[in-house]
Amino acid sequence: MLAPAVRSVSDVGEFALIARIERALRRARAASGPAVALGIGDDAALLRVRPGEQVAVSTDALVESVHFRWSAEPPESIGRRALAAALSDLAAMGARPLGVVVALAAPPGLALARVDGLVRGMAALARRWGAPLVGGNVTRARDTALALTAIGAVRRGRALRRDAARPGDRVFVTGVLGGAALAVARAARGAGRPRRRRPAPEPRLAAGRALAALRGAGACIDVSDGLLADLGHILAASRVGATLDPARVPRPPGFARACAALRLDPERLALTGGEDYELCFTLRRGAPGPEALARRLGVRVTEIGRIEARRGLRGVPGAGAPGWTHF
Amino acid sequence: MLAPAVRSVSDVGEFALIARIERALRRARAASGPAVALGIGDDAALLRVRPGEQVAVSTDALVESVHFRWSAEPPESIGRRALAAALSDLAAMGARPLGVVVALAAPPGLALARVDGLVRGMAALARRWGAPLVGGNVTRARDTALALTAIGAVRRGRALRRDAARPGDRVFVTGVLGGAALAVARAARGAGRPRRRRPAPEPRLAAGRALAALRGAGACIDVSDGLLADLGHILAASRVGATLDPARVPRPPGFARACAALRLDPERLALTGGEDYELCFTLRRGAPGPEALARRLGVRVTEIGRIEARRGLRGVPGAGAPGWTHF
Repeated sequence: MLAPAVRSVSDVGEFALIARIERALRRARAASGPAVALGIGDDAALLRVRPGEQVAVSTDALVESVHFRWSAEPPESIGRRALAAALSDLAAMGARPLGVVVALAAPPGLALARVDGLVRGMAALARRWGAPLVGGNVTRARDTALALTAIGAVRRGRALRRDAARPGDRVFVTGVLGGAALAVARAARGAGRPRRRRPAPEPRLAAGRALAALRGAGACIDVSDGLLADLGHILAASRVGATLDPARVPRPPGFARACAALRLDPERLALTGGEDYELCFTLRRGAPGPEALARRLGVRVTEIGRIEARRGLRGVPGAGAPGWTHF
Repeated sequence: MLAPAVRSVSDVGEFALIARIERALRRARAASGPAVALGIGDDAALLRVRPGEQVAVSTDALVESVHFRWSAEPPESIGRRALAAALSDLAAMGARPLGVVVALAAPPGLALARVDGLVRGMAALARRWGAPLVGGNVTRARDTALALTAIGAVRRGRALRRDAARPGDRVFVTGVLGGAALAVARAARGAGRPRRRRPAPEPRLAAGRALAALRGAGACIDVSDGLLADLGHILAASRVGATLDPARVPRPPGFARACAALRLDPERLALTGGEDYELCFTLRRGAPGPEALARRLGVRVTEIGRIEARRGLRGVPGAGAPGWTHF
C-alpha cells in the first residue's frame, strides 16, 4: 500500500502558496483591521495613523535550527513565538500595533502542513492582539526562516525609549521571569518524548500603552535576551547604573522545584533566561505606587531595583563572570 | 608564511557586528533623515509622517544561492539590489520613503568584508534615495539572507494601486526593459571571468510620486518579475484585459545585438525579464500626453498598450505557451 502523499511547498509553487496563506489569514480574520486601508496583494500595504502619531517599526527573525526545530515544537507554536517577539518590541515602545509583514523563506520540500501551522499560529495571535498580517514575501531557501516586521503607532513624545532612565528611578518588571528558559531546558532534557507546545508568550501591548500614557514613565525594554542583558541595554543607552535585588525578581509558581529537578539555579535562570517578553521599565519618584500601577497596567508589576548615577550593575554577585549572561 | 587571517562574523559576535554595521551606516550618513525621530538602537525605530498621510509597508528578501551568489557579483552590488527592490515597491505605490529595516541572517564563517560590502552597497543607495536604514536584526543561519522592509508615506487616497486599471486606460512603462535579465544571462555565460557588478537598478521613486499626484493616474506596479507577469497582476486585480504592442516595449541601447550574440530572443527577454524595477502604469484618457508626462515624471515614458474590458492579454502571440513566463 502506498503511503498518502505529503504535499510540499514545491507541489503548489510560489504564487499558489501566497494565495493559500492569504486565504487562511482571511478565513481567520487575521488580515484586516481598523488600521488597514489596503492589505495583502498590492506592492505595499497601506496603514492608517492618527493625527499626532509617529510610526514605530521593528524587525525580528526566527531561523530553523537556530531559533526553532520542527521536531521540538508544533508549527503553530513557532508561528506564535515569531509574532509575539515582533509585537513585544512594539509593546516596549508603548505603541499600538497597526500591522505586521512577514518574509517567509522555505525549502521546496517543506510540508505544506507546516506552513499552514505557522500561519495558523500567527493568525491566532494576530487577531487576538489586533495586529493584522498585511503583507509579506515568500522565497525559496535551504532552511525555513521567518522575518517579521511589526509596524505600530505611538503619540509623538510618548514613546518609551531605552535612553530615558534617570538616577533615582525605580526599576520594575511585569509578570514573572524564567518560565520560557525553563520550558526550553525541559524540552532539551526530554528529547524523544512527545514534543510539547512552548508556553505562548504574551506581548505586553496593553501594559506598554498604559505605561506610555503614564506620568513619570522612564525607560522601557522587553525582556527577550534575559533581564540582565536587557536591563544592561537600558543602562548603556541611559548612561546610568543600577542596583538590583535578585531575590525580588518574580518567578512562575513551582519554579524553584522545577529548577531543582533539572539541577538549574533558579535565580540565575530568572535573571538570564530570555524570551519571556515581559517589560522591564523605570519610573520617576512621583509615579503611582505598586497597586495603582498594577491596576493601570492590567498586569502584575514588581519593583526589583533602583537606577543610580554610578555606571555598572550592583547587587548581582556573579553577573560579571564569564558565561553568566549570553554575551 | 601565514596567510593574513580573514575575519569572519563569528570572530566579532552578534552585538559587535550590530555595532559595526551601525557605525558604518552613521559614517555614511545612511542611518538618519528628516523622517527619523529615533533610529537604530531601541526596541523600534520611530518615523514621522505628515498629516493626511498613510503608511506604506513592503517587504522583500534576497537569499544566497537563490537570488545571489558571492562568486557572481560584489557584495556592494547585492546590497544595492536588495535595497532597490524594497524601495521599488514604495515607488510603485507613489509613496515617499521614510525608512528601511533589515533582517540579516549570516553564517558564522561569513567574511566580515562581505557584510561590510553589503552594508556599503545599501548605505550608498539609502542616502541617495533618502531612505535611511533605521533598524534591523542580525541572526545566525546556514546561508546569508537579507529581508528588507521599506516604510513609506503617501497621501490618503493617492496611492497607486494594482486594482485601479479601467477599460480605455493607456498602458505605459518607464525607462527600458530587459537590461537586468541580459546582465544575468551574460554573467551565467561568463562563468570563470572576473565577476562583474550588475547594473544598479534605479527605483523610480520620483516618478512614482509624480504619478500619484497626477490627475488621471490609474493602476501601477513595478516590473520585478517581468512585464507580462507584472502587468498580469494589474489585469487580475483590476478584473480587466489588455492589448499590448510588444514591438513598442522599450529596450536598452545595443540590446538586439547583445541578445543575438547570446542567441536570446530580444522581444521575449524584454517582455519577461525581471528586476528592471521600472514602473508599469495606466492612465485615463484625459491624462497628459507623452511629452508632458515624461517631463512631469522626470523619466522616459513609453505607451505600450491599452486596457480593455475583455479579460486576458492580447497582442503577444506566444504569451500563453508554457515556459514563456516564469510561473
